[in-house]
Amino acid sequence: MAKIHPLSDVHSENIGENTFIWQYCVILSNAVIGNNCNINCHVLVENDVIIGDNVTVKPGVQIWDGVTLEDNVFIGPNVTFTNDLVPRSKVYPESFAKTLVKKGASIGANSTIVAGNIIGENAMIGAGSVITKDVPANTVWFGNPAKQKGTIDENGIITYQ
Amino acid sequence: MAKIHPLSDVHSENIGENTFIWQYCVILSNAVIGNNCNINCHVLVENDVIIGDNVTVKPGVQIWDGVTLEDNVFIGPNVTFTNDLVPRSKVYPESFAKTLVKKGASIGANSTIVAGNIIGENAMIGAGSVITKDVPANTVWFGNPAKQKGTIDENGIITYQ
Amino acid sequence: MAKIHPLSDVHSENIGENTFIWQYCVILSNAVIGNNCNINCHVLVENDVIIGDNVTVKPGVQIWDGVTLEDNVFIGPNVTFTNDLVPRSKVYPESFAKTLVKKGASIGANSTIVAGNIIGENAMIGAGSVITKDVPANTVWFGNPAKQKGTIDENGIITYQ
Repeated sequence: MAKIHPLSDVHSENIGENTFIWQYCVILSNAVIGNNCNINCHVLVENDVIIGDNVTVKPGVQIWDGVTLEDNVFIGPNVTFTNDLVPRSKVYPESFAKTLVKKGASIGANSTIVAGNIIGENAMIGAGSVITKDVPANTVWFGNPAKQKGTIDENGIITYQ
Repeated sequence: MAKIHPLSDVHSENIGENTFIWQYCVILSNAVIGNNCNINCHVLVENDVIIGDNVTVKPGVQIWDGVTLEDNVFIGPNVTFTNDLVPRSKVYPESFAKTLVKKGASIGANSTIVAGNIIGENAMIGAGSVITKDVPANTVWFGNPAKQKGTIDENGIITYQ
Repeated sequence: MAKIHPLSDVHSENIGENTFIWQYCVILSNAVIGNNCNINCHVLVENDVIIGDNVTVKPGVQIWDGVTLEDNVFIGPNVTFTNDLVPRSKVYPESFAKTLVKKGASIGANSTIVAGNIIGENAMIGAGSVITKDVPANTVWFGNPAKQKGTIDENGIITYQ
């Protein structure tokens, strides 16, 4: 069973075994969250969202409609996703731009992810980055705008270019 | 009547018709908020604040004393305002530096707005920007520090420089 | 006595005199917080944390295990700390990387602090910065990555290089 803190506002019934939802979160009713996840405090998850198993979402993050997080993804604190490339108040796009974060990728603290991009498997995004392009698997990116700075292996060893 | 979520802590009585205040917000007593606004979860609004009509404020934003948001402004998630240019703990300036966001402007996700600047009408600030200067009407800025990269017309079409 | 807002979830009993903890905060049981601090709304403080006296923490900040804030430190809104240099979901380092913010230092709004660094006494970090190195006392840094841009004296007067 999921462990949902009573100080959160959780409407989804599709939350997996041993997943923790901490304080002051808002989870909308159609969100799907897998097993063994850790959703820290002050997180919002909208409806058209799929989160895999073993995912960590640190505080201050919003997972908007159109965002998918595959298994074993790490989302650092205050990471900010988007789903509208030219936002205007009270103007809604016909469909939201998608974001896909693939298996085992990590997004460092306070990074910003411009919608419409794919973060590849096991990629590592450094803290404070702004992602504006697709990120290939097993690569390391940082900066504003972020650029590829190296590669990372399965043991977490980074080789800078 | 305003629709105030019972999980928020709202002290202002100056909140307009059809404005939604979502979960875990803090709104201080002298804040003035117009009609038809959408104030998402995890937002703080201080006292010396005026927010117009049809404004959207996404989660994780603080609207400090000295900030004005005109009609139809869009403030993206985790956008961060300021009102003290040289902050020190327990030291208070004689007056707070002002920030004015003019009609129809949009500030992209996770941007930082250094106080003392004016964001012009219909300006578009890209995600992850740091604004350190006045931004003219109908222009597009991004980067850290943000620079003008183009113009935007009334249909949202951007012309890059 | 500390003043703890009833809408917060505070487990520590080591919180000093005249310290305010505002709404929707989470403070874990072993955190130590000094006297006369102001911990704004939507803040998380973990266990292995020491916060001195007269410290200000603005909203949207997480103080992770391994972070120390000395007396009179100012932490701006949405400032983001870290404690794991190569984070992977469900993989835990043997020990967390430390961060030390020394007496009287200020960290500007929405800055990101990569762990393993020391912010010197009375240093001033500009808004939207990404700190990746040690910052000497009485210096001013900003940018991504942040670089030294000048010095600051005891009256808050900045001399740019």
